[in-house]
Amino acid sequence: MNLKNYRCAKISKVTPADHILKRAIETDKTSTIPSSLQKCYETGRIDAFKLNWKEGMPNRPHIYWDSDVAKVLEGVANILSIYPDAELEAEYDKIIDLIVSSQQPDGYLNSYYTTIEPENRWSKLWLNHELYCAGHLMEAAVAAYEQLGKTKLLDAVCRYADYIDSVFGYEEGKKRGYPGHQEIELALVRLYHATGNEKYFKLAKFFIDERAQEPNYFKEVEKVWDSECLNRQAHKPVREQFEAVGHAVRAVYMYCGMADVARISNDEELFNTCEKLFDNIRNRRMYITGGIGSSFFGEVFTIDYDLQNSSLMYAESCAAMGFVRFASRMLNATGDGKYAEVIEKAVFNGVLSGISLSGDKFFYTNYLEVDDNTKIYNHGAKERQPWFTCSCCPTSFCRFLPETLQYIWSEADDELRLNIPIANTFNSAFGDVAVESLYPYDGKVKITFNTPETFKFALRIPEWCRNYTVKLNGEKISAAPAAGYIIFERTWQNGDIIELDLDMPVTVMRSNFKVTNNMGRIALMRGPLVYACESVDNPDGIANMLIDVTEKFELVPASGLTEGAVAISGTAYFETAPDTESLYFSGNLEVKKGRFTAIPYHLWQNRGPTKMAVWIRSK
Amino acid sequence: MNLKNYRCAKISKVTPADHILKRAIETDKTSTIPSSLQKCYETGRIDAFKLNWKEGMPNRPHIYWDSDVAKVLEGVANILSIYPDAELEAEYDKIIDLIVSSQQPDGYLNSYYTTIEPENRWSKLWLNHELYCAGHLMEAAVAAYEQLGKTKLLDAVCRYADYIDSVFGYEEGKKRGYPGHQEIELALVRLYHATGNEKYFKLAKFFIDERAQEPNYFKEVEKVWDSECLNRQAHKPVREQFEAVGHAVRAVYMYCGMADVARISNDEELFNTCEKLFDNIRNRRMYITGGIGSSFFGEVFTIDYDLQNSSLMYAESCAAMGFVRFASRMLNATGDGKYAEVIEKAVFNGVLSGISLSGDKFFYTNYLEVDDNTKIYNHGAKERQPWFTCSCCPTSFCRFLPETLQYIWSEADDELRLNIPIANTFNSAFGDVAVESLYPYDGKVKITFNTPETFKFALRIPEWCRNYTVKLNGEKISAAPAAGYIIFERTWQNGDIIELDLDMPVTVMRSNFKVTNNMGRIALMRGPLVYACESVDNPDGIANMLIDVTEKFELVPASGLTEGAVAISGTAYFETAPDTESLYFSGNLEVKKGRFTAIPYHLWQNRGPTKMAVWIRSK
Repeated sequence: MNLKNYRCAKISKVTPADHILKRAIETDKTSTIPSSLQKCYETGRIDAFKLNWKEGMPNRPHIYWDSDVAKVLEGVANILSIYPDAELEAEYDKIIDLIVSSQQPDGYLNSYYTTIEPENRWSKLWLNHELYCAGHLMEAAVAAYEQLGKTKLLDAVCRYADYIDSVFGYEEGKKRGYPGHQEIELALVRLYHATGNEKYFKLAKFFIDERAQEPNYFKEVEKVWDSECLNRQAHKPVREQFEAVGHAVRAVYMYCGMADVARISNDEELFNTCEKLFDNIRNRRMYITGGIGSSFFGEVFTIDYDLQNSSLMYAESCAAMGFVRFASRMLNATGDGKYAEVIEKAVFNGVLSGISLSGDKFFYTNYLEVDDNTKIYNHGAKERQPWFTCSCCPTSFCRFLPETLQYIWSEADDELRLNIPIANTFNSAFGDVAVESLYPYDGKVKITFNTPETFKFALRIPEWCRNYTVKLNGEKISAAPAAGYIIFERTWQNGDIIELDLDMPVTVMRSNFKVTNNMGRIALMRGPLVYACESVDNPDGIANMLIDVTEKFELVPASGLTEGAVAISGTAYFETAPDTESLYFSGNLEVKKGRFTAIPYHLWQNRGPTKMAVWIRSK
Repeated sequence: MNLKNYRCAKISKVTPADHILKRAIETDKTSTIPSSLQKCYETGRIDAFKLNWKEGMPNRPHIYWDSDVAKVLEGVANILSIYPDAELEAEYDKIIDLIVSSQQPDGYLNSYYTTIEPENRWSKLWLNHELYCAGHLMEAAVAAYEQLGKTKLLDAVCRYADYIDSVFGYEEGKKRGYPGHQEIELALVRLYHATGNEKYFKLAKFFIDERAQEPNYFKEVEKVWDSECLNRQAHKPVREQFEAVGHAVRAVYMYCGMADVARISNDEELFNTCEKLFDNIRNRRMYITGGIGSSFFGEVFTIDYDLQNSSLMYAESCAAMGFVRFASRMLNATGDGKYAEVIEKAVFNGVLSGISLSGDKFFYTNYLEVDDNTKIYNHGAKERQPWFTCSCCPTSFCRFLPETLQYIWSEADDELRLNIPIANTFNSAFGDVAVESLYPYDGKVKITFNTPETFKFALRIPEWCRNYTVKLNGEKISAAPAAGYIIFERTWQNGDIIELDLDMPVTVMRSNFKVTNNMGRIALMRGPLVYACESVDNPDGIANMLIDVTEKFELVPASGLTEGAVAISGTAYFETAPDTESLYFSGNLEVKKGRFTAIPYHLWQNRGPTKMAVWIRSK
């Protein structure tokens, strides 16, 4: 077992200059975070930490509320590390003061249980979100410390983690339980990295290792049904799980924790399980957008190749973000470009589709097709919503948008790796590296090194790219990529330039035939971007459209969207029916030649209510 | 308001000689009824009437159990009226004795409430099936009386109805409630027709009229949510309901009761509402098979044109049967062939698909497409099942199969109407009329009259038929149908013959474009029969098949199914992919020319597990 030791770039070291992430992160500061904070105040999520709620008052605290506040705070820390803002920081400190003030003498810190049912701590691990909320508080605390150097919340969550460690574990008298909603595993590993305290790593490893061991804690102690155990990935020990099942967010959060534990403890069996789980998702259970968890019913993974595009589907925004985090851990442990491929696919498509350009409206369900027949289940909606009763997705964006910066680069002591060649400057340990490009809207990339040091530089050649050229200081390089990266090992001079030119034609994609609902349908991609047709651009209809894949596609500016966004135009045929009244009719269709326009999928539904489809019939 | 007074043929007067109904009815006697009776014994449904169940015993009585027994008994009465059988009749009488013995001194008759919570009668009308079970007992009793002349159960249910009448009504001190699962309305009307007692009609009318009047009983007395009121068609008074909503079976049972009440009381407003509801279903919410209730989620109608073909769909067998009963009431009140059209569409497709040729296995959900990606929700299954926990569908078939005979003909004092020209002999009030045909597998029909009387004979010309000829005693008749029927008014001679020749080509059907999931897909019909492709006949695949609608179709015997069944064969193209491993790929498909075979939809899944589709892509 020989795992790599790459790490993500630090958020504050990366300055984006692209058309997508830079805008999204700025909007996080100006809109997503302020609106989420506002909602957290309005709904009582922040006041809940005052612990003074009484029966009959509005805004009864809820078991998952602490996590929302923690996620917003983590986002604020990320954002403040990029854009200092004294006013926001003061508010941030105040909320942290309030949270810390709610900590109990024994270290316990949970607004719901402390206020509503203090006698029932840790009694319903399978159902409630007690350890999940604890994990998010830990992540918020680590961000406060790592991004801003603040220790108040870190100290509090360490006391909380110490207390949790006194409750859970192998030792006599401790509970051998584990969370119903995983999250604390990866959070404890982050806490371990931030503090160096091995206790936290061991507790994380306990939660991973003990899960679903016999006697199964959920079944034996909490009397949970088999189906609910499955839904929480507690149907069998994690090392025996090779298919992604159950609640998708819980699953990928757990896989993150498993990958962390495997890497730190050099656990080959556990890491192999992670690889199998990742491949199962990537090869059989992932939307072309990187979205995962294909059923609204339980927000779960279902079966191989079950990837409906509309009513039934889910592809929760949070699940796609969690999948990115899992892929990032796998990327940093292996250096294999297939993981970077999934990161950019998910970020540029199935994650960013979850948030409006205005930054304050969100999809929980990221449909691939919406029309009059789309039925809305669970948290689904045809238009992005400002908030949800269970509002995990909005608060997830607060922290995830700046987090995207850390996936652009990976680094090790002797190496820099450019995973996603968007325009940015990375203030690395070796000096500044500047990337100029219009990526992902264009394949030309110029990388300028102001790094007079000797180190390896790994340049990712995306899998989707069939033809490319690479030049070093104007000279063509013919090296073939290994595991998706071309490695340059040399002593760099200030002003060294690598030019990468990725051929980025419009590509007609099809699904494996086992995805029967996509038979006869194609999706257009260009580079890592998946495209979609919206009725606002296609007044002759979408369901009745057949894209002519034999004719040339044209690139045009996407109208009414963001700067730099590129749309695709081409030839299409539009069917009309001889009978528009009857529910069923016989008779031939008329077909009219015309044009279609497709925009990047993640930009859809930013121009009002509309119909949309990614998978479109072809001629 | 000038409603017609047609009535259905009496079951025992019709002797079928066709390839579909005759076989199904015989199988009802030899398989469906015996296996359902067996299950009713095994599960405790019959023993429940002993009222001796105690906590801790197996087979705890359930609120809907009485209805299952009542429906089987109604089926037995129907069957015994065709095929006398002393042994079956003795068993039937014994069960009736047991049921009647469970009647309480005040007339109440319900095994669940009497045994389990006697103090809670009528306390949860919205949720429980108390009035629903009462209705089915009434229908069983009317069948016992009308088919077999037996009065024991009839007397008991009259006492029960009298007691119910003392509980519900407008009078001071009575409850102004109504059933959460409609059924008793139409049953009370049947009881009124059987007994002539107007009290029962008035009570039926009360349940119809009072439904959802302010103050809404469900909301005000039983504190039911709005969504549950909608699900039970109690969201607004019935005269204001113009769209079919909520639980589909409850809906169509209620519409039956509404149509009955409207006709008896010559209530134009109420009848117009029925017409609007029927048209809403037929024109926007009905599968091409006549199946209705397009969502498994709540077993409900959803929105116009929402007609998914697989996982999401429902089209419960019971709902299709209820829709036939509603259509029959509308047909007999108007004489309009559009209602007969729906009856034959539903019977020959979406109802009969619910039962295996062996007669002892059933679909609850009648999918129009099943493949590896079909997800099973609620009572769905990819293969017919012998029984269900909530086993309404099997017991519905017991009574419905013989009931189909009554839809073949309608009659009035001066008229006979042939609605469905299958081979049969009708022993009418005017004498015997014999129909010879292979319908619906062939369009040639010969009708021989042994009826030396003067009366009108109405011959239906199906809407699906574009060309036909009619001859009376060898002479061509050129009369055009009015409302779907050609009327012959004459004095008939023994041996008079009408020959009808309906042109019955294979027809390529398409859906209204608003049914977006069927875009690019066609369904094959021939006459009233909808066809489906099964993988057992199409080893090159179904999802990858494109039917060539420009080539000629061929009729061939359907192999391994029933006598007389006709299959369709034709040219198809089969796609293969260059990449069968990747989840998504670019590259062109190969297309190979071949043949497809389609069988009548209602015969699918009688040759083992299989994939199937009704709506297939076309070239």
